[in-house]
Amino acid sequence: MAMNLAQKLIQSHLVSGSLEAGSTIALKIDQTLTQDATGTMVMLEFEALGLPRVKTEISAQYVDHNLLQTDFKNADDHLFLQSACRKYGLWYSRPGNGVSHPVHMSCFGIPGKTLLGSDSHTCAAGSMGMLAIGAGGLQVAMAMAGLPFAIKMPKILGVKLVGELPPWVSAKDIILEMLRRYTVKGCVNTIVEYHGPGLKQLTAMDRHVIANMGQEMGATASVFPADEAVQAFLKQQQREVDFVPLQADEGATYDEEDTIDLSKLQPLIACPSSPDKVVPVREVAGRPIYQSYIGSSANPGLRDFVIPARMVAGRRVDNSVSFDINPTSRQLLEEISRSGDLATLLEAGARLHQTGCGGCIGMGQAPASGRISLRTVPRNFPGRSGTEEDQVYLCSPEVATASALTGKITDPRDLDMDYPEFTEPEQLSDMRPLLQPPQEIPVEVELVKGPNIKPLPDFEKLPEVLKGPLLLKAGDNVSTDEILPAGAEILPLRSNIPAISRYAFCRVDENFYQRAMDLNGDCFVVGGDNYGQGSSREHAAIAPRYLGVRCVIAKSMARIHRRNLINFGILPLLFDDPADYDKLAQDAELEIDAPMKQLKPGQPVNIKNNTSGETIALRHDLSPEEIETIKAGGLINEVREKHLLTGV
Amino acid sequence: MAMNLAQKLIQSHLVSGSLEAGSTIALKIDQTLTQDATGTMVMLEFEALGLPRVKTEISAQYVDHNLLQTDFKNADDHLFLQSACRKYGLWYSRPGNGVSHPVHMSCFGIPGKTLLGSDSHTCAAGSMGMLAIGAGGLQVAMAMAGLPFAIKMPKILGVKLVGELPPWVSAKDIILEMLRRYTVKGCVNTIVEYHGPGLKQLTAMDRHVIANMGQEMGATASVFPADEAVQAFLKQQQREVDFVPLQADEGATYDEEDTIDLSKLQPLIACPSSPDKVVPVREVAGRPIYQSYIGSSANPGLRDFVIPARMVAGRRVDNSVSFDINPTSRQLLEEISRSGDLATLLEAGARLHQTGCGGCIGMGQAPASGRISLRTVPRNFPGRSGTEEDQVYLCSPEVATASALTGKITDPRDLDMDYPEFTEPEQLSDMRPLLQPPQEIPVEVELVKGPNIKPLPDFEKLPEVLKGPLLLKAGDNVSTDEILPAGAEILPLRSNIPAISRYAFCRVDENFYQRAMDLNGDCFVVGGDNYGQGSSREHAAIAPRYLGVRCVIAKSMARIHRRNLINFGILPLLFDDPADYDKLAQDAELEIDAPMKQLKPGQPVNIKNNTSGETIALRHDLSPEEIETIKAGGLINEVREKHLLTGV
Repeated sequence: MAMNLAQKLIQSHLVSGSLEAGSTIALKIDQTLTQDATGTMVMLEFEALGLPRVKTEISAQYVDHNLLQTDFKNADDHLFLQSACRKYGLWYSRPGNGVSHPVHMSCFGIPGKTLLGSDSHTCAAGSMGMLAIGAGGLQVAMAMAGLPFAIKMPKILGVKLVGELPPWVSAKDIILEMLRRYTVKGCVNTIVEYHGPGLKQLTAMDRHVIANMGQEMGATASVFPADEAVQAFLKQQQREVDFVPLQADEGATYDEEDTIDLSKLQPLIACPSSPDKVVPVREVAGRPIYQSYIGSSANPGLRDFVIPARMVAGRRVDNSVSFDINPTSRQLLEEISRSGDLATLLEAGARLHQTGCGGCIGMGQAPASGRISLRTVPRNFPGRSGTEEDQVYLCSPEVATASALTGKITDPRDLDMDYPEFTEPEQLSDMRPLLQPPQEIPVEVELVKGPNIKPLPDFEKLPEVLKGPLLLKAGDNVSTDEILPAGAEILPLRSNIPAISRYAFCRVDENFYQRAMDLNGDCFVVGGDNYGQGSSREHAAIAPRYLGVRCVIAKSMARIHRRNLINFGILPLLFDDPADYDKLAQDAELEIDAPMKQLKPGQPVNIKNNTSGETIALRHDLSPEEIETIKAGGLINEVREKHLLTGV
Repeated sequence: MAMNLAQKLIQSHLVSGSLEAGSTIALKIDQTLTQDATGTMVMLEFEALGLPRVKTEISAQYVDHNLLQTDFKNADDHLFLQSACRKYGLWYSRPGNGVSHPVHMSCFGIPGKTLLGSDSHTCAAGSMGMLAIGAGGLQVAMAMAGLPFAIKMPKILGVKLVGELPPWVSAKDIILEMLRRYTVKGCVNTIVEYHGPGLKQLTAMDRHVIANMGQEMGATASVFPADEAVQAFLKQQQREVDFVPLQADEGATYDEEDTIDLSKLQPLIACPSSPDKVVPVREVAGRPIYQSYIGSSANPGLRDFVIPARMVAGRRVDNSVSFDINPTSRQLLEEISRSGDLATLLEAGARLHQTGCGGCIGMGQAPASGRISLRTVPRNFPGRSGTEEDQVYLCSPEVATASALTGKITDPRDLDMDYPEFTEPEQLSDMRPLLQPPQEIPVEVELVKGPNIKPLPDFEKLPEVLKGPLLLKAGDNVSTDEILPAGAEILPLRSNIPAISRYAFCRVDENFYQRAMDLNGDCFVVGGDNYGQGSSREHAAIAPRYLGVRCVIAKSMARIHRRNLINFGILPLLFDDPADYDKLAQDAELEIDAPMKQLKPGQPVNIKNNTSGETIALRHDLSPEEIETIKAGGLINEVREKHLLTGV
């Protein structure tokens, strides 16, 4: 049978299950990636597992999120992570090396390998023929321990790219077009595989832009073939030896198919405050902007900085604009420094920031009240920029730069300018010497735990009767940025569950924490469609669990967050009839009798609304293994009880 | 009579008074400098004065402190300042242009001019033959309004530099040697004038290093002649036309004299947590470090970045060290980018931060708990780095870089390395096109005030009887960093007195705010020697005043803070007998009867300790004008009452 690339990648790593959509499959994980904002918890979890050393081919820990260091907490976290890497045999990437996704791709990406990462944008490595999946931290800790990664076999959407991109239209516009078509929930439980002649003009880093934001459509992974472009990329990274050609078989088919004619695309922009509110730039042109922001894992390529530099050469950005340049990696910053493009940007009035995730994750660069910010980042969820009621638009570097020059949203085709030339250099500097490699021979290392690094709390098993108020009723598309925000105030608390829990749901209901503390008992949360989209942060499960949330009921759930709930013993249930959503009012007293017994594959779960007297039949989509995890009160309890790691 | 340079500068700007030490003199101010952390208050004050436009030759507003933008507040402040510049005729320097002091020197510094700045390090411009003085914001607002600046005529300390600096010893070691000799209070009410043959080898930027940290000794100003080095500097800045030669007359004398033989100096370091705890580096060599930090207004020269780059070329910084590079200005960043030195630093593992004050003011880059940070910044007051109980050492870029390479405090002479060569470029890029100039013709501009920008509170006059508890008794050398800290959490509140007042004295007594709120009335504060040293922030007067502090009694006071107290109606009194300090216990009930009447030039002020029954005679050093200000409840009240600005 002719196989598509996604199937091949799965087949070659299949530990159990079959390629039939919906079947539970377990995959061997070759590589893991963690970043600091999720990684401290992963290391605490790995420590709890009691293993001496990771069992993957490559596990790499990046420090890219918590870089502001407004007090001791960030710096302490970095030291903790560095010590954990030494102790457990991971690569450690110091602050200043850059954003995990492009750095991992440059240093360790190998076509045909699987990568599991505790960052939702891990899917970016699909740009080079890897099967790269974002997951909750505990999932990644398990993969580091050598356990396979289990998911439902996704369906495969084949997207054929044809035609040639017109000038001023680039990779970002392709993924914005996808978001326009599929929305933020259109690709849940789907792998998006790109193929076709249109690929030719996309470099590996262009593909990274597209693969990265697959997450914004809810996709499990994005996959591109490993072709000449990937070979050229590896050569540039002085790693041509790692190249393995890989593509779909001739005649391969997909569960669903779509085509984008690149020649028909125009500069696009996602309006506030969802990545799928996509319109042509000209539709919103002329609105005055405060900020134009280049960078992040969603536009990490050299061309994403050099094209802007050449656009502003000899010009000056508008006096009203903060033109924020966020180099994605040390390699890129070195390159634009040597090439003169950095000096050109500075001369034009750009403001250079430190290498890393920066303002994309709300660590600085928050826009002014009520002003428009144009960003090349992957997300514009409400408040993620650090400013409440922000006005963040997502666009290509070309649109961001054109707008920086004029001071208002501008389609670059409306500038009187030739599209700048850019040729990728044949070779770039090797970043690996600045990553600390795993110790060849394990050494005795003490974990360095500063005063803000607290152990993971213990959680109880599912009770005989699950009973409590519906403490929060939320709407559709609630993101993990709303369940547990990031940003400069909250991110530094990622190693401290009691402290970070104060911010649970604070963007949805500022009194949630207080009400949960007053209750001091079990409770429920209800959501609409696509509950828990966005970032993979498991804190969005751990903090609610810490505050007593034992069950979340929603119309549908995002993949990673759903699994994070299970990992920490929160029961994820679904409305069988979406209309039942309206039957549950906030503060209603809910009750699930004998949840241990009710939870059977394919069986409904009855919930009693003691306030209205009604009983509603809910459904669940838990596998038998997931049910076991829930019953144990979460994966850590389960592992401890069952010695799951014996024999690993 | 042969005059020294300081006398000449004062003479040429004298509006009233005489050059006799101790006489009150009023000086014409040619230029003003404000930065964002003090500037928002200055603009609110200038707005309150009701004038249409500044009356100085040059007034420039820099945005260099509040650059993290963790939420809307910083960005809103920038927009407010930009609108104020447009409205009132100031130059506006956008975020990314760099630290006020070197940028002002590069763009606007002219030998022979006076400069008043709402930043304590304004004295740095003394490096080029200016009389440059740091002051409270309200003082600067008055200067912008065209009023002369009044101070007590300082004594002049002449420091003769002879001999030649050995390799690995540079400007920072000269000022550290001065601090070793004079301590943090040894130059209060003193202008330090440097002269002698040793000057030859110091560029204008080297002199900036020395002039800048004059503030750390309490000096009113630091003065260097305008000689060939200054001419070369102005030429480099494409402003040779602004050069005016200026030096002390042959045979000029000084109130006090000292000599430093540069050839005898060695690498020095100031230990935690005071700039005067200076020892030879070798005395503390070998201590493991967490951080090595290059930058700030106290080492802003090109050579301060290029020498480190050439030291690390082909090497790699130790894995345990965060090597933080903080470029001081856009010009410098452009230059090291073009010259390849930036790429060299990056290759060696350096971490590049945005241009500005950064970690020097606690805006990011806080060190890890209990770890050593080596910094080229001017101050290491406790907690200023953002980490409580920090371990900050001050040193030259050479020492910081040597230590980054080894991972422990290292005298660079103990590295097996030649001292790198460096020649100043003949010309640098012109930064002025990236500053927004004043409108030639005033235009109607609305001040842009975000929700965090609050009007200055109104303050009452001095009461008939000043009565209340001694709410806080502090020790020696309490800095304004302890009275009202900076840092990432607090700096963004600089435009909002009610909000920032929560942090008054929090580093000295975390319950101060609550106790003041509970009291809800007038109270006293007692300090030891050199009370209010450090930063010029007037918030360290306004916030205590807002909380009810009406009188501060100390053994001695730092110049700028003393004047800030007066400006906001707080009575500054001094112990006539330092032993009386011990007679006032915290919480004692104090009373000054009829302060209006008691306050007469040269007369004591009696204070009754109602708890002990004792009466103590205190002294004051207020001029008649200052007494008027105190009585009015502060300068703004006085201006309003007396229409002081009529006829300006």
